[in-house]
Amino acid sequence: MSTQGTKEQATKCFTDLFPILTEEFLKEARARNFPEESNFYHNVPGGKMNRGLSVVDTLKILKNDQLTEEELFKSRVLGWCVEFLQAYFLVSDDIMDASITRRGNPCWYKMEGVGMIAINDAFILKSAIYFFLKKYFRQEPYYIDLVELFHEITLETEFGQLLDLITAPEDNVDLNRFSIEKYHLIVLYKTAFYSFYLPVALAMHMAGIKKELAFQQAKKILLPLGEYFQIQDDYLDCYGDPQVIGKIGTDIQDNKCSWLMNKALTKVSPEQRKLLDENYGKKNPDNVAIIKQIYKELELEKLYKEYEEQSYKKLNDCISQLDDSLVKRKVFITFMNKIYKRTK
Amino acid sequence: MSTQGTKEQATKCFTDLFPILTEEFLKEARARNFPEESNFYHNVPGGKMNRGLSVVDTLKILKNDQLTEEELFKSRVLGWCVEFLQAYFLVSDDIMDASITRRGNPCWYKMEGVGMIAINDAFILKSAIYFFLKKYFRQEPYYIDLVELFHEITLETEFGQLLDLITAPEDNVDLNRFSIEKYHLIVLYKTAFYSFYLPVALAMHMAGIKKELAFQQAKKILLPLGEYFQIQDDYLDCYGDPQVIGKIGTDIQDNKCSWLMNKALTKVSPEQRKLLDENYGKKNPDNVAIIKQIYKELELEKLYKEYEEQSYKKLNDCISQLDDSLVKRKVFITFMNKIYKRTK
Repeated sequence: MSTQGTKEQATKCFTDLFPILTEEFLKEARARNFPEESNFYHNVPGGKMNRGLSVVDTLKILKNDQLTEEELFKSRVLGWCVEFLQAYFLVSDDIMDASITRRGNPCWYKMEGVGMIAINDAFILKSAIYFFLKKYFRQEPYYIDLVELFHEITLETEFGQLLDLITAPEDNVDLNRFSIEKYHLIVLYKTAFYSFYLPVALAMHMAGIKKELAFQQAKKILLPLGEYFQIQDDYLDCYGDPQVIGKIGTDIQDNKCSWLMNKALTKVSPEQRKLLDENYGKKNPDNVAIIKQIYKELELEKLYKEYEEQSYKKLNDCISQLDDSLVKRKVFITFMNKIYKRTK
Repeated sequence: MSTQGTKEQATKCFTDLFPILTEEFLKEARARNFPEESNFYHNVPGGKMNRGLSVVDTLKILKNDQLTEEELFKSRVLGWCVEFLQAYFLVSDDIMDASITRRGNPCWYKMEGVGMIAINDAFILKSAIYFFLKKYFRQEPYYIDLVELFHEITLETEFGQLLDLITAPEDNVDLNRFSIEKYHLIVLYKTAFYSFYLPVALAMHMAGIKKELAFQQAKKILLPLGEYFQIQDDYLDCYGDPQVIGKIGTDIQDNKCSWLMNKALTKVSPEQRKLLDENYGKKNPDNVAIIKQIYKELELEKLYKEYEEQSYKKLNDCISQLDDSLVKRKVFITFMNKIYKRTK
């Protein structure tokens, strides 16, 4: 066990910071006589907080488990900034995807009295990031690096969201728009940058890492790792145990540009393709059953297992070739082991 | 005439820069194989560009009309950043207000194939600002000041938008929510910061002004000037000549928290108040006519003219007391003369 305490303690310390940060921000709003809102409390906590906790975990590895109280605190602040960014994406994605629930609750825009105000609330979630960065990091030499990193990752993610929305609109099914190349692009930009690269890059800045090559190296592992994570997600949406993953998958119903469908499209006979076209993106369980039957005929589960093995090997090879003096290999190995063969 | 050419030439140079900046940004999108969009071309140009041009005009005054080509170029870039910020607000406001047209065209979210993708497009409009700031100002000592200024003003405006949405939802009329205090707050945050203070503050940073007191002084004039401008806008919405202002006012139909209604509420008899409650925020011309009749009975036009005189006097007094060595008085006088007694 490290000197920094157990995983549960680390999670608790991280969680405890959220209301403190939120009140810091709301003080500003109150000082201007603005109305109180439950925006932050409804939208930011309640997830697994993997992204946020990764900032703290990564900094611990980079600094050999020897963090001062101030470093711990600041890495948690950055972790929450990532969670705020995530909340900003989720609140707005839910409107764009016409979703109904999120994390077991109604989506924010579906709440009484919210509606399209949720768009402005998403904006405020994002603005809060820069408020926290200024408040806690303004004196640091890497302040501008943090700000620019959030700008860049935000834009990458917005590009990914745009491509996803154009490729797989919720209400207009056209499987001709799908392709595995587009899938790679969407996943890379919409998920991998902000979920995998961002938390590590933030910790690297805090650790005083300056070399551009170190950041490139981190990208080289973390972006493929992010893709692997999303492919898992797509697999679990269809084949995971709802009791374990905590939700019932709806990618088929929602016309999602998922790894399974993209793989299916490369393997189908003309007859099967016709059935995919007729049944994908429909809410009726009968349509869903037909899609799942074709996935079965095409042995997509087996294909996924093969992909998983290959991907694990490839990533490990890649990690073993890294220059440890730029960024410690352990950062990536830890990340890898967290998600490999996960079931939730 | 100044050495920098006529107003028409200045406007043309400013306008000509827009497609160049846009292509710079789109190059990035193309390099990543992202789809082309007409987002920027549809949403950024087409306005009066007063905010953007103000950056250039202010810098000219601050530097005695002696700008290098590079300074001219950079002030135009900042001007366009303000116009991008405005576009970001308008695209999202139109969704939140359920508007139909903007500048004589359909609102972006109403365009074929856009819909709720417009939310993400608004995000990209905002991200473009930081892309341009990084590209053209990264080497400047005031780079972080520009970035922080945009962050702060964005948040102020989002606060203002939130208050406006809560006070005057388009589909739920309740005049009890209105008050002249709330009106001041909404106008200050939703309009005055980004339309009046921001362009001048940007030019001040470019001119090398550092003293906090100078920026406070600018706020002291520009924020009330912004309020005066918005009150004019509210007045013209009801009493302006549609031929001149280029649109038919719909504040009464749209349940807007306007200066006229707030003033009316402080002057009405119980009978008149009942009529206001029954007829405000309705699309039918008969309802609108009843509201206008009450405005007439309350002599709101006269009240406005009095306000305008007073406000002009007060602002001029305030300007005359300024410390010219902090920020030149001429900046504010020019601004003032641009909008005083405007009819469009």
